[in-house]
Amino acid sequence: MIAEPTQPTVAAAQIEFWFDFGSNYSHISAMRIERAAAERGVRVIWKPFLLGPIFKTFGWNTSPFVAHRALGDYMWKDMIRQCAKYGVPWRQPSIFPRLSVLPLRVALVGVDQPWIGEYCRRIMRRNFVEDRDIHTPEAVGEILDALGLPAADLIARAQAEPNKLKLRESTDTAQASGVFGAPTFFARGEMFWGNDRLDDALEFAVGPSAS
Amino acid sequence: MIAEPTQPTVAAAQIEFWFDFGSNYSHISAMRIERAAAERGVRVIWKPFLLGPIFKTFGWNTSPFVAHRALGDYMWKDMIRQCAKYGVPWRQPSIFPRLSVLPLRVALVGVDQPWIGEYCRRIMRRNFVEDRDIHTPEAVGEILDALGLPAADLIARAQAEPNKLKLRESTDTAQASGVFGAPTFFARGEMFWGNDRLDDALEFAVGPSAS
Repeated sequence: MIAEPTQPTVAAAQIEFWFDFGSNYSHISAMRIERAAAERGVRVIWKPFLLGPIFKTFGWNTSPFVAHRALGDYMWKDMIRQCAKYGVPWRQPSIFPRLSVLPLRVALVGVDQPWIGEYCRRIMRRNFVEDRDIHTPEAVGEILDALGLPAADLIARAQAEPNKLKLRESTDTAQASGVFGAPTFFARGEMFWGNDRLDDALEFAVGPSAS
Repeated sequence: MIAEPTQPTVAAAQIEFWFDFGSNYSHISAMRIERAAAERGVRVIWKPFLLGPIFKTFGWNTSPFVAHRALGDYMWKDMIRQCAKYGVPWRQPSIFPRLSVLPLRVALVGVDQPWIGEYCRRIMRRNFVEDRDIHTPEAVGEILDALGLPAADLIARAQAEPNKLKLRESTDTAQASGVFGAPTFFARGEMFWGNDRLDDALEFAVGPSAS
């Protein structure tokens, strides 16, 4: 009997994408990460978390883009240029940052489901392209309906205590890992901050090329 | 008599580079801006200013990298990766941010001189590669000497009242222009923040290509 060749245990390259639906630079990454990762054979692990409680640990009661006018004024100009550069649709929202707890809770319910990417892009599009609120059951339900998903059931599971706790735990994990902004990426244990580092993080996820 | 063809008045493309010698991301830009600009036919206007007084207007008494440990821890890792990416030499300084008033004042004296670029790179190298102080007359004098410049004379001019005022005015202009960090670039009236935006700023400085 001929022995089967031993199958080497090779973990597929992966990247963790830590994001908040209220974060504008997370919008750019959410729109482009699945394609950019697929081109390099990297799997995306979606990591919804709440940025606000982390800002609070710094003594910040809101986004630095709101607290400091010079930063905010610049950021809105930068967003126009960056979205144009990456071909990502964009309209400056009339409310910033928007409440994001419910859509994040639903994202946690769906984090391992095939619809997670499309769901996240649609929430981002609603906030940062359509300039509409994303925190109500109606808003989230509309998007889940459009994806052919059981909206009422998913929202009920999202709002159940164990899942609420999950979002708090996710936020605690982010903070304990050194996350201080969004988007943040982890690849092979290294942290990369900001949409500007997404490509570097993906290259790092793939690892040194065999030569 | 044949008329001379009319010479169109074309201003050469230029970029303003606002920097502080205490700023680590300014180090990366200082090391690469002249070559990157020359490749695109863009002239570099060196704009020394003090970042500290601008941070103070935000209620910050030091660099956010010092005030917030998570930001600082990340930044030092990011610097290793970014310097490797751009081929810029780097060693994490044992003192951060280093005092930079005197070398900035000297930079203002030399801002239109052919030695400005090399002078700035040597100050940056001393801080961020050799891990040595840059604020003493000895430190600055050593570098001016090595460049074959009249160190004592330049330092005296740098420390004279009119030039001290010039650095305060430069800092005021930066703040009034919306600068909140370093490096910051201006090209055709638009502001670009951070070494990550240097290439975008240079492209913008050149303007839309004729087609």
